[in-house]
Amino acid sequence: MSVYRAPAEDMLFVLEEIAGRPDIATLPGFEDASADIVAAIIEEAGKLGTDVLDPLNQSGDSEGCTFENGVVRTPTGFKEAYQQFIDGGWNSMPFDPEYGGQGLPWLISTATSEIWHAANMSFGLCPLLTGGAAELLSEHGSDALKSVYLEKMISGVWTGSMNLTEPHAGSDLARIRTKATHDGDNYRISGQKIFITYGEHDFTDNIVHMVLARTPGGPEGIKGISLFVVPKVLVNEDGSLGARNDLRCASIEHKMGINASPTAVMLYGENEGAIGYLVGEENRGIEYMFTMMNNARLAVGLEGVAIAERAYQRARAFAEDRAQGRAIGDKSQEVVSIIHHPDVKRMLLSMRSQTEAVRALAYYVAGNLDVAHRHENSDAAKKAQAFVDLLTPVVKAWSTDVGVDVANTGIQIHGGMGFIEETGAAQHFRDARIAPIYEGTNGIQANDLAARKIGREGGVTAKQLISEMRASLESMASSHARMSSAIDALERATDWIVETYEKDPETALAGAVPYLRLMGITVGGWLMVRSLEIVQQKRDQYPDFADRKLASVRYFARYTLTEAEGLAIAVTEGSSSITQTALKDL
Amino acid sequence: MSVYRAPAEDMLFVLEEIAGRPDIATLPGFEDASADIVAAIIEEAGKLGTDVLDPLNQSGDSEGCTFENGVVRTPTGFKEAYQQFIDGGWNSMPFDPEYGGQGLPWLISTATSEIWHAANMSFGLCPLLTGGAAELLSEHGSDALKSVYLEKMISGVWTGSMNLTEPHAGSDLARIRTKATHDGDNYRISGQKIFITYGEHDFTDNIVHMVLARTPGGPEGIKGISLFVVPKVLVNEDGSLGARNDLRCASIEHKMGINASPTAVMLYGENEGAIGYLVGEENRGIEYMFTMMNNARLAVGLEGVAIAERAYQRARAFAEDRAQGRAIGDKSQEVVSIIHHPDVKRMLLSMRSQTEAVRALAYYVAGNLDVAHRHENSDAAKKAQAFVDLLTPVVKAWSTDVGVDVANTGIQIHGGMGFIEETGAAQHFRDARIAPIYEGTNGIQANDLAARKIGREGGVTAKQLISEMRASLESMASSHARMSSAIDALERATDWIVETYEKDPETALAGAVPYLRLMGITVGGWLMVRSLEIVQQKRDQYPDFADRKLASVRYFARYTLTEAEGLAIAVTEGSSSITQTALKDL
Repeated sequence: MSVYRAPAEDMLFVLEEIAGRPDIATLPGFEDASADIVAAIIEEAGKLGTDVLDPLNQSGDSEGCTFENGVVRTPTGFKEAYQQFIDGGWNSMPFDPEYGGQGLPWLISTATSEIWHAANMSFGLCPLLTGGAAELLSEHGSDALKSVYLEKMISGVWTGSMNLTEPHAGSDLARIRTKATHDGDNYRISGQKIFITYGEHDFTDNIVHMVLARTPGGPEGIKGISLFVVPKVLVNEDGSLGARNDLRCASIEHKMGINASPTAVMLYGENEGAIGYLVGEENRGIEYMFTMMNNARLAVGLEGVAIAERAYQRARAFAEDRAQGRAIGDKSQEVVSIIHHPDVKRMLLSMRSQTEAVRALAYYVAGNLDVAHRHENSDAAKKAQAFVDLLTPVVKAWSTDVGVDVANTGIQIHGGMGFIEETGAAQHFRDARIAPIYEGTNGIQANDLAARKIGREGGVTAKQLISEMRASLESMASSHARMSSAIDALERATDWIVETYEKDPETALAGAVPYLRLMGITVGGWLMVRSLEIVQQKRDQYPDFADRKLASVRYFARYTLTEAEGLAIAVTEGSSSITQTALKDL
Repeated sequence: MSVYRAPAEDMLFVLEEIAGRPDIATLPGFEDASADIVAAIIEEAGKLGTDVLDPLNQSGDSEGCTFENGVVRTPTGFKEAYQQFIDGGWNSMPFDPEYGGQGLPWLISTATSEIWHAANMSFGLCPLLTGGAAELLSEHGSDALKSVYLEKMISGVWTGSMNLTEPHAGSDLARIRTKATHDGDNYRISGQKIFITYGEHDFTDNIVHMVLARTPGGPEGIKGISLFVVPKVLVNEDGSLGARNDLRCASIEHKMGINASPTAVMLYGENEGAIGYLVGEENRGIEYMFTMMNNARLAVGLEGVAIAERAYQRARAFAEDRAQGRAIGDKSQEVVSIIHHPDVKRMLLSMRSQTEAVRALAYYVAGNLDVAHRHENSDAAKKAQAFVDLLTPVVKAWSTDVGVDVANTGIQIHGGMGFIEETGAAQHFRDARIAPIYEGTNGIQANDLAARKIGREGGVTAKQLISEMRASLESMASSHARMSSAIDALERATDWIVETYEKDPETALAGAVPYLRLMGITVGGWLMVRSLEIVQQKRDQYPDFADRKLASVRYFARYTLTEAEGLAIAVTEGSSSITQTALKDL
């Protein structure tokens, strides 16, 4: 039995020392984010995770959601847990106080989101989606729309869902066919959407669907898509709920994981057409979506961090408990717990060091996001935004790949028990496996990094980051040879991406995935090395933690960072071999 | 929809050119293994795989096995498929003609086993276990036992099961508690065994359990364990079936994958004690088990090869079919299938090149096994046996890790559909995931390699293999720089293992897992490079295949072999950091 505990020590360390919480608390509107308040928030969130969400995680997976006559029932206890969640105000943390939000930094809700996803990823998806929908509405919705929907979504009294995918339009949103026709001031929506997370459920009386659709006569492709608010239940003028809108859940999917979260097929407008309200202007739906997507991608990246942490905790508890074999060189017959065996130690260090590295990077980017939004010095804000843009696909893809890898190692530590569902280790893998796919596959993230974030700007921001990492290393008390080599490798690969993207974008993109991993381990490695320098300088403040961090960083340097050279070669020498391969030879 | 087709072209290429089929056919008793006959066997086996086993794979997974009142029912169609399988004589291929076997080389049944596991891994486990049990009996059983059981097991009229694991004795067999007490000429067995694959099922009237148990007064630990034949149904003197033995299946496990294969909890001797027949001598059970284990480990390694092939075929079919996005640089709105996208090409090449590499290694070792058993020149036989001993843990662990990795990439190629169970991609992953665990976890394999196969003999065989690879490279028409570097890295790491094992075995074993991977990619890479040289010399014989092999080998060299340096550093510099880490810091 493993009980999830929020890793408050590492979370607070990263918030304070790596992600810039103290500076962010000086930004306008963020005065409440003091060290004490943040520590108290993490503590309370941890309790909710441990006491309420974690106990429902395995039962939710095995029970799953049911679908009957258009009605979705979530597993036993989820509805009550959701009520407790919104009663505690957890849904509203990063949102605008004008609409009932708490106006806390994104960085702080990053930490609490990690807790929800670690304790119960299926549950955590509901606030994740509602948050994305609320953000879209905040940024682009009219005051009229906001006044009807936003406060309820921020409080969590109503949830939100994101309706992008259709059977023929997954990664390729240009192929969306759902229609929106004018009807007075509003629109009538008709079409089918698939893979709609929490598209239907029993938590709340209303669900606010954000739906991408085409208006008649608009441009073809990606530039002819608009965004609509389509509520499950129409809202009367006095704010009370009225008639059901013309939309329904047709079925839910039978998935590999996140089984406690319903993934709906949604049918809009089978009869008179579902009433939809335009967000912003026609044909700008994709553009609006992109403003929200960065945060959603960071949020999915966090799922990777979270599952990795949870899988690590479970594996560590098992390794300490499971007695098997003797210590090497011990001639007595005394059985030891498997945590004593060198390869089990190695696996645990692999799990923890990678988890800490992706956490450091995710929080670092979240901190930059707050600076980008609030800093009064526009140069500082711009630089932070450039780092956010560059690193968001890295957080999304690298963290979720790490989530899968760490959960996979967690199964291995359990041996045969790892393959038995009741143990719980397999669920972490099955849950983690969606994160590299949704919110833009990790291949799409890598393309975004190589093409939009590096290629199109000639690598300016990437080189700025490389310089900053070099300068930071040079200022350190110790030298870090593996880290320096990784930065050199990243620089070579970046130069190659910049040059190649200009003359041969196809080949540049063939190198995108190994390039993204190289950037992930290098920037993550840099934050790990920085962490080590800090805990060694402040040993009094972090007495036990310093040794643990040393163990993590040492592992990361000698196992993970040593991949850097090979990855750079894969990028610079391998990519052309992909492009040259004929389809018949695949 | 993807239909499995046995990859006959690559299989036959590897059999003929890499694994030494022509030489093996000259060994005594193997005269039937001519090129034509082997090609015909592969073709017929492929038909059974495609027409009978593959169509039951997904339905078997979703239906699963049921357990009621001690009776296990396998999914619809499995019993009939098994009958067809044994009627075709497929169970008896590598066994002694004296007991009804066909006496074909192990190498040939290696290829057919790949087909069974690829088409339906849950099904393939039944002959795998029966084969292991039959081999134990052939090698160590008395003539009396053989005359009662062996022919029926070789034909498949009865199946076999291996009963090692108990709740407290997984990797650590020294902790076995199951008891065997004398009762006249025989024994009475009592105890609980878990994780017994096909421990109970509805394919056949009898199941021959091979059970490890302790006799009273024997030594403690691993040296006090004996091996028994314990039939489900007792056999009368005339060979007819008699009374039920005192054993039963108490339950079957709810697993992550291989759901169509029952994994039983077995209870022996709840009443008067189950009648068991000693195999060989008392207290030598573990020793006997080890003689069989090499083959079983190769067989599990093959499961990795097989699932990788199946996952590749499914992903390739999907990538060709799924239209999404435009070709890079194409300004038209024309949608292309995703196989055109560079990262999808890369993923497919990653899947296929790794699959071909693990196949080459597995068949190469199987070929050596035949030489070891049959070669009349004892030096040749000894050398072959030494290579088999060295490389068996590598085949088991590396191939099964590759199986998991390739199946994981297969999910990714499917995007959102990969996470939906009906697609079938997720099943390959879930099935593949057991193979790194059972038959000795991959960590145990790595320990076996580093300690028993390298450390204890001072690296003699490993160095012989390294010399052979170097000489082979030097004799090639082209130079292969990445391959040479990988061999150098393997040599450095081998020297380190040899030196360190002597003075500090714990640290040596901390490096075992990355060392095993390094050996896998290096030896597998060498066989890939050899393959390339051969197809280029014999382009007329392998016209299309030569280009495909070039694409695979190029990928393997630039992506997989470039890991070698980093792995060597992890071994030689990382291992001490594992040993130095205190338990409190894990």
